Amino acid sequence: MEEMKKGLEGVVALDTKISFIDGIQGILMYRGIKIEDLADLSYDAVSYLLINGNIPNETELLEYSQEIKKNRQINGKQIEVLNEFDFGIEALDGLRTAISCTAHFDLENNHHSPDANKNKSIRLVAKFPTIVAALHRASFGQEPLEPNDELSHGANFLYMLTGKIPTELEAEAMEKDLILSAEHELNPSTFSLRIAASTLSDLYSAVICGLCTLKGPLHGGARKGVMDMLDEVGTIENVQSYVLDKLEKKEKIMGFGHRVYKTYDPRARIYKDVAKRLSIEKQDSSWFDMAEEIERILYHEFVEIRGKSLYPNVDFYSAVVYKYLDIPAELATSIFAIGRVSGWIAHCMEQYADNRVIRPRAHFV
Amino acid sequence: MEEMKKGLEGVVALDTKISFIDGIQGILMYRGIKIEDLADLSYDAVSYLLINGNIPNETELLEYSQEIKKNRQINGKQIEVLNEFDFGIEALDGLRTAISCTAHFDLENNHHSPDANKNKSIRLVAKFPTIVAALHRASFGQEPLEPNDELSHGANFLYMLTGKIPTELEAEAMEKDLILSAEHELNPSTFSLRIAASTLSDLYSAVICGLCTLKGPLHGGARKGVMDMLDEVGTIENVQSYVLDKLEKKEKIMGFGHRVYKTYDPRARIYKDVAKRLSIEKQDSSWFDMAEEIERILYHEFVEIRGKSLYPNVDFYSAVVYKYLDIPAELATSIFAIGRVSGWIAHCMEQYADNRVIRPRAHFV
Repeated sequence: MEEMKKGLEGVVALDTKISFIDGIQGILMYRGIKIEDLADLSYDAVSYLLINGNIPNETELLEYSQEIKKNRQINGKQIEVLNEFDFGIEALDGLRTAISCTAHFDLENNHHSPDANKNKSIRLVAKFPTIVAALHRASFGQEPLEPNDELSHGANFLYMLTGKIPTELEAEAMEKDLILSAEHELNPSTFSLRIAASTLSDLYSAVICGLCTLKGPLHGGARKGVMDMLDEVGTIENVQSYVLDKLEKKEKIMGFGHRVYKTYDPRARIYKDVAKRLSIEKQDSSWFDMAEEIERILYHEFVEIRGKSLYPNVDFYSAVVYKYLDIPAELATSIFAIGRVSGWIAHCMEQYADNRVIRPRAHFV
Repeated sequence: MEEMKKGLEGVVALDTKISFIDGIQGILMYRGIKIEDLADLSYDAVSYLLINGNIPNETELLEYSQEIKKNRQINGKQIEVLNEFDFGIEALDGLRTAISCTAHFDLENNHHSPDANKNKSIRLVAKFPTIVAALHRASFGQEPLEPNDELSHGANFLYMLTGKIPTELEAEAMEKDLILSAEHELNPSTFSLRIAASTLSDLYSAVICGLCTLKGPLHGGARKGVMDMLDEVGTIENVQSYVLDKLEKKEKIMGFGHRVYKTYDPRARIYKDVAKRLSIEKQDSSWFDMAEEIERILYHEFVEIRGKSLYPNVDFYSAVVYKYLDIPAELATSIFAIGRVSGWIAHCMEQYADNRVIRPRAHFV
């Protein structure tokens, strides 16, 4: 047995064809394609790419999108069960239960053929936004809204959440958010999901494993943390004292630093651009300016003064985008999951296709 | 980055004080105590040991057992939700949903103090048997039975399942089963649960992560596989042709071989002894004889002829014990979870107490 690397930092746990990260140069690719080039596609196209391995041609994309649209609805019995939880549970907890219930209603739940898994993939991708929106509405005693087949994956989610057709830029922002959230190599949720898959557990169980891990504030929960921080800071005038106070107390600033990236997270740049454009459309630069000021001060304190690398991660400007989209902070992790489910499914399929149980050892002390 | 070990075989992922396995000599210890010495304690005592680190003294054990008994019940609303799933779902799927629901009803669900986690631990340990039994009864349209405070953890579970007070030996067998299932170092479910815990996700979510991973036929699902095999073989006369046929087709025999043990699994010996005694009490040696014959032939074929190590693992004689306890095969994985939850909780607590996010890398090919 070998020496232990705490948190398995830098340890290569498996081979993958799904994504590549160069944390030094700030490169992220899905299936060999740079994230900057993927951000302008539709979520459906990126979902297809992750799960099937190639960018869909026009026919493939049309068919995939239609399949997803056909599967957006959830059945009445399921809505009844969701409505049982009207007593203020956390969004991600509700999502975990709801996806677990969805499995019960899927007749192929415990069928493991490639075809069954493909069908279940489409259902999972399709139903995640519907369930997140329905749960949110149920928490206010509101009925779920029917999906709108005219709208893209992201735009339809915003519609089901609010009942309003989003502007073109809002729709683009949501699509980009889901694309940028869709996949990130062996992050903790994906790794735990691959362990579940390696025991040949079913696709739903593996995805729920991912959800359970995503929930943590050191993972998917971090985006909500940034949104809460922006609320706490409140105005640009408070930024400097807030940040310097945190630094003095040696507390972390949410949305900065990353295990793998030692430079600017390429996703953060794209989010920053979207946030800027939203601030112009909404004629309200306050959230964006506040965020940029936090970034400026931290750059000065860490990169310029201390020569350390501390840059915004994916959660930082995405939180600003959510602010402009009027997304409640408590939904941030669930929305992350709406995007990530395609990457999770891709990793499940890859694990199933060439399996070895993931079972390391512990060192007894 | 280092060279990859497929399935992280032999890679040390973390330090632990909870258990120790010597797979060459066939030693398993919980908290430094050999499994042979633990098997005669009560499940409550072993659960306490795993979670708190020491064998409880008389007062500690009494208090812990009382706390567990007080928390065995599930509330009416929860039973209503369980009864919604009366359409033949897999037991482990139902358990996953039910535990996810249990979190909603726990007022400390998203409280993370050591005290809150201690309270939640007790509730989880206490409610697992009740939920497994209630779900099973619900699948036949039967109402759940009230827990019986006169009975031990294992005996009460058998009672809630069947409505019959178990014999002394049946009660002992169930207690031993739960003890032997309680903990096994970094098995896949525990490892995936520690990853969830490392993002500081809550205790329920982490335990559900464990359940999702346990479900796989290459992990907790294997016990059901052995029970199904025993049914398929049917009589001792069929054993030889069944086994030799499998070997010729190069198919695996369920319940043999283990990633870590290269000798007799120490738990298998204890299960074998219990199975033997049950066969005498029940005046029916058929299941035991069949199992022993499978073991004999495989020993001859592998150890004697081929010089390879292939021994019964934990799932083999436990399946025979379940047969004598009249436990339906589809409950095998859920019952495994009733035992394992104490080990899972111990690993969660250990991870929380000295945390580093578990986030390895993948090698892009």
